[in-house]
Amino acid sequence: MMTVILCLGSLSEAQSQPQLNLMPMPASVQTGTGQLLIKQSFSVQVTGARDASLDEEVQRFQTVLSRKTGMPLYPAPPAFASLLIHAEHRREVVQKLGEDESYELTVTPGGANLRAPNTLGILRGLQTFLQLVQITPDGFAVPAVTIKDQPRFPWRGTMIDVSRHFIPLDVLKRNLDAMAAVKMNVLHWHLSDDQGFRVESKKFPKLQEMGSDGMYYTQDEVRDLIGYARDRGIRVIPEFDMPGHATSWLVGYPELASAPGPYSIGRTIGVYDAAIDPTQERTYKFLEEFIAEMAKLFPDEYFHIGGDEVNGKQWSANPKIQAFMQAHGMKSNQDLQAYFNEHLEKIVAKNHKIMLGWDEVLHPDLPKTIVVQSWRGQASLAAAAKQGYSGLLSYGYYLDLMWSAARHYAVDPMADAAANLTPEETKRILGGESCMWAEWVTPENEDSHIWPRNAAIAERLWSPQNVTDVDSMYTRLNAVSLDLEWLGLTHRSAREQMLHRMAGTADISALRVLADVVEPVKEYNREDLTKAPISLQAPLTSLVDAVYPESDIARQFNNLVDRFLQSWRQDKGAEAQMRSWLTLWRDNDGKLQPLLGQSLLLREDLLLSQNLSVAGAVGLQALDYLDKGQSADNSQTAFDSPRAQETAFFAQADKPSANLLLMILAPVQKLVNVSAGSPPH
Amino acid sequence: MMTVILCLGSLSEAQSQPQLNLMPMPASVQTGTGQLLIKQSFSVQVTGARDASLDEEVQRFQTVLSRKTGMPLYPAPPAFASLLIHAEHRREVVQKLGEDESYELTVTPGGANLRAPNTLGILRGLQTFLQLVQITPDGFAVPAVTIKDQPRFPWRGTMIDVSRHFIPLDVLKRNLDAMAAVKMNVLHWHLSDDQGFRVESKKFPKLQEMGSDGMYYTQDEVRDLIGYARDRGIRVIPEFDMPGHATSWLVGYPELASAPGPYSIGRTIGVYDAAIDPTQERTYKFLEEFIAEMAKLFPDEYFHIGGDEVNGKQWSANPKIQAFMQAHGMKSNQDLQAYFNEHLEKIVAKNHKIMLGWDEVLHPDLPKTIVVQSWRGQASLAAAAKQGYSGLLSYGYYLDLMWSAARHYAVDPMADAAANLTPEETKRILGGESCMWAEWVTPENEDSHIWPRNAAIAERLWSPQNVTDVDSMYTRLNAVSLDLEWLGLTHRSAREQMLHRMAGTADISALRVLADVVEPVKEYNREDLTKAPISLQAPLTSLVDAVYPESDIARQFNNLVDRFLQSWRQDKGAEAQMRSWLTLWRDNDGKLQPLLGQSLLLREDLLLSQNLSVAGAVGLQALDYLDKGQSADNSQTAFDSPRAQETAFFAQADKPSANLLLMILAPVQKLVNVSAGSPPH
Repeated sequence: MMTVILCLGSLSEAQSQPQLNLMPMPASVQTGTGQLLIKQSFSVQVTGARDASLDEEVQRFQTVLSRKTGMPLYPAPPAFASLLIHAEHRREVVQKLGEDESYELTVTPGGANLRAPNTLGILRGLQTFLQLVQITPDGFAVPAVTIKDQPRFPWRGTMIDVSRHFIPLDVLKRNLDAMAAVKMNVLHWHLSDDQGFRVESKKFPKLQEMGSDGMYYTQDEVRDLIGYARDRGIRVIPEFDMPGHATSWLVGYPELASAPGPYSIGRTIGVYDAAIDPTQERTYKFLEEFIAEMAKLFPDEYFHIGGDEVNGKQWSANPKIQAFMQAHGMKSNQDLQAYFNEHLEKIVAKNHKIMLGWDEVLHPDLPKTIVVQSWRGQASLAAAAKQGYSGLLSYGYYLDLMWSAARHYAVDPMADAAANLTPEETKRILGGESCMWAEWVTPENEDSHIWPRNAAIAERLWSPQNVTDVDSMYTRLNAVSLDLEWLGLTHRSAREQMLHRMAGTADISALRVLADVVEPVKEYNREDLTKAPISLQAPLTSLVDAVYPESDIARQFNNLVDRFLQSWRQDKGAEAQMRSWLTLWRDNDGKLQPLLGQSLLLREDLLLSQNLSVAGAVGLQALDYLDKGQSADNSQTAFDSPRAQETAFFAQADKPSANLLLMILAPVQKLVNVSAGSPPH
Repeated sequence: MMTVILCLGSLSEAQSQPQLNLMPMPASVQTGTGQLLIKQSFSVQVTGARDASLDEEVQRFQTVLSRKTGMPLYPAPPAFASLLIHAEHRREVVQKLGEDESYELTVTPGGANLRAPNTLGILRGLQTFLQLVQITPDGFAVPAVTIKDQPRFPWRGTMIDVSRHFIPLDVLKRNLDAMAAVKMNVLHWHLSDDQGFRVESKKFPKLQEMGSDGMYYTQDEVRDLIGYARDRGIRVIPEFDMPGHATSWLVGYPELASAPGPYSIGRTIGVYDAAIDPTQERTYKFLEEFIAEMAKLFPDEYFHIGGDEVNGKQWSANPKIQAFMQAHGMKSNQDLQAYFNEHLEKIVAKNHKIMLGWDEVLHPDLPKTIVVQSWRGQASLAAAAKQGYSGLLSYGYYLDLMWSAARHYAVDPMADAAANLTPEETKRILGGESCMWAEWVTPENEDSHIWPRNAAIAERLWSPQNVTDVDSMYTRLNAVSLDLEWLGLTHRSAREQMLHRMAGTADISALRVLADVVEPVKEYNREDLTKAPISLQAPLTSLVDAVYPESDIARQFNNLVDRFLQSWRQDKGAEAQMRSWLTLWRDNDGKLQPLLGQSLLLREDLLLSQNLSVAGAVGLQALDYLDKGQSADNSQTAFDSPRAQETAFFAQADKPSANLLLMILAPVQKLVNVSAGSPPH
């Protein structure tokens, strides 16, 4: 078998193709005339305020520019700077929330000018410049443009869980590069959970020694990563999740627990019962020392204590704790957690940090200084803001749920309940954070689970609220996705290698056809925790682990079907393209079955492949009916049997198989419905 | 535009598919029954001799095994070793030429056993084991097999030129990984040339300071690389090319030159006139000190002094040198170079090294201890052997000439003139080295210029002389090529990124169709040094820089045409596949032209793309004629005009365009010739 690449012509999306491949879209863009050619003599001159991180950024800028264009640069003398950089002030030594990130970039055919109040703004502007570089008939160039830009929200983060699956430093670093490219400014590092404690503590070494299987970051590595992030204008916020999600702490320090040990590291997916005991003095003594140590290690002024999903079972089962609650007039486990959080907050504050926690930390007993991170939605965020608490939105930004970029993109921190806040309350919405929970990712597929979708979230948090055109977003997302490869991200290339592993052969063209039109099941549908426990040590090497979270081809095919139907079936170009796709799919199973049969990793995809073929055949037949002006009800279907069987097929094929969804099914069904005289939906 | 992958069914090559994807093919393979399943509990136990490099190799083996299978390994207790390793002796601290590399590997469903006289053999055997791991219906497994293996030649090297284009350490390291995977055991490091001096000398720092543009390896980095290579069973031989190819030395030390300075680093392709002056005492004083320093830095017992391509212009033009030659009775520049080499050899020998040089060093005045590396062919190698000199073959193994793997594969060090040597003389043929000269490579495309073709050369030098089946070689080469990706080689992935750069868009499917069927011009046809000088600072970002040196698809299409014609046109399956390809090519230009028009980097490929389309149309028409039993002479051609015009097309399209050759042209022409009633060739 071998591969042929067939171009299906004009199945392009962006009717509304914007001129500039910028993401996030700047606050203000004015295009000019002409372009600045990028030549090998391209040079940068810095005047005004400068600091080490700016100098390094300029270096990196030149490296990436050189990589993207493939041109070794031999800069001309500084007098002939192609890009002039000027910042008024140096940025803070420890990057602050709300620090000025604005910049102005002017490009003319004669040169470019980047100015900012603060060197941090220069970092942002350089990323904009890099995105503007494009190949033209005259060579690489940046179009003439005037951009005035600043972020909508001061807090634009990505949370990365390194507990369920350990993510090595180099993977984190390239993700920081990607975050910087889309102007995100917070890495929220989820460092501990039931399934692993990932930071070296010198005070309490049993945390990492017994709680990590040896997979943790040394303090030197932590400092290295923080410096790396800072150079890119990214704050690093550590999260130590407590009092729940704390099994890994208790392996080494069972005396902190609310139930007798011993404990062992969580090996399976799920929320564990283990909780720190909030009623005993030694808990706070431990945390005093531990937080003091970590507060020094992590310079950022915010400190995340988790606080989510305490199921309270251990507390309810412990008579001593129950007695304590009664003695203190606590009515619920929530009250007990608030008591814990109050103590925690004082410790955090004593270390000159602001406490941050998930939704559940919100409790009237807590001071207004704390920040609430909402995984529950804008309503809970708005409620917090009304009570005087600052907040971040993460609901709608869970990358592990395998949503489409468009679906994430539609989630706005200021929407719904948050839309009606007073200006004062509105200011308390600091921004948001995407979340990459690590139940189903490994270092191999981490990038593809985060990117490029994360760029859409980055735009939501940076760009003006009215930037909402989905077609434009996808076009620009594609461009960003390519750019990320020059930074070393593997979000596209990893799939190829994983498919090769599954197939064991060089020719994976038929497997790619299938991989291109499926998506992983959404939400938590991959997990069925009611059956056997799901091990976190198992390999993640199935098709569902390799495919992209979102099928571009299914989306585009769906658009094609809509175009065809909206044209009253007159768009013959669209029809020809649909036929090419449907034929490809119909014929694919015959090529793919031998491959599926020879690999244990692919065996589970047999039904999926068959369904794709049937869908192709059914779709082609529907088009035939439409061409002939027949209704399918009056003829035989692809099944050579009544239409009921077709309906049965769609019902069956619509169900997840091998944890995958066949994303072209819905548009094919639209065609079939119309051919049968029913409305498309 | 978007991509569809079309599988063209059975255009598979290997009718003679071997069961085992081993390359190089071992000396003896006996397949057994059943297979050893690779599970997460896979463990290795080492008994017998061990050393640090073996322990590290076992670690790396487990890492690569884990990466290839995607399985985190949780080894069972050592008592249940899945792979038992036993070496009789430790390897030499400094790896020696001819050190025992043999091993025996026995795999049964119950476990695997790897034994070797020497830990070096274990390294080789572990690579064999890794290649044997394949996905099966039961999961990853190694087939039951008994392998007894040892190399045919003791010297199996790759020469890498880091002077013309600097190649960073990380690129060299991954190439060492790849060399180890195919059991090569020498890195010949071409460290100096007219265009750059790449090693730090502490004695003569102006060598790197003035001769390298800052692109050189520190001595620490050199030691690091040597250690890295040694761990993988690879010797590192430095080459300092003299007395010619020495411009970069003379920038800092013009007093060594045969003509007055000043000198500057060579910036263009070509052989320079500059030569070290062999007649002056200070030359030897300098070399005494320099070679002493480098002999310490490089522990291998061989030391390469280059010695090639001295054009002698400076010597002829220098009256002092002419007088010296007369005074010493030298009749030619060759005599003068021999005089130089004699001195050099004494210096090298004083440092306990054996001198190695290119063909030209061969001269009766030189001692028999030196080794001659032949870029001229087996005849010159045989002549040297007859005179008592040891030799290496590099003729036929120049990777920069863009030959096919098959062409390299067909070159045997013992063929032609070397076939008739006595056993004594035969022993003097130590092996060979592939050569990656760096005029046209950058760190970005270095891997794809070396791999996978280098694996075919590795097999030639390791496997028994009668292993020559080309179909089998290509099948196994494909498997090796995939395996190399798990080591981080970019020989396949780099093309994708470079095409994206040229196109500036995500959809490069039409560009891939073109890229798949072209090859760079061969030999030195890319260079026309008679016109303007070719700068080494120019970007290498054209299509010719991105495509693979060899078009698999053209080769396979050619096989398909042969199959069809050999079947007396009865093979309808072959015909259907040919038609799919030809249609794809015919229709490709329409899709590709818009892309070509919008990129300066692609503009030069316009004609090539047109020619591909015409070739597709002409081929289809030829098939139509054949189907109808008509001769093309009696009908109109694709040009709607006489056949002469078709002939003119082939004559035009056969010429290189944008330094590329359209590799499907010859098989299409075969079809056309047959359809016109002519013999295919």
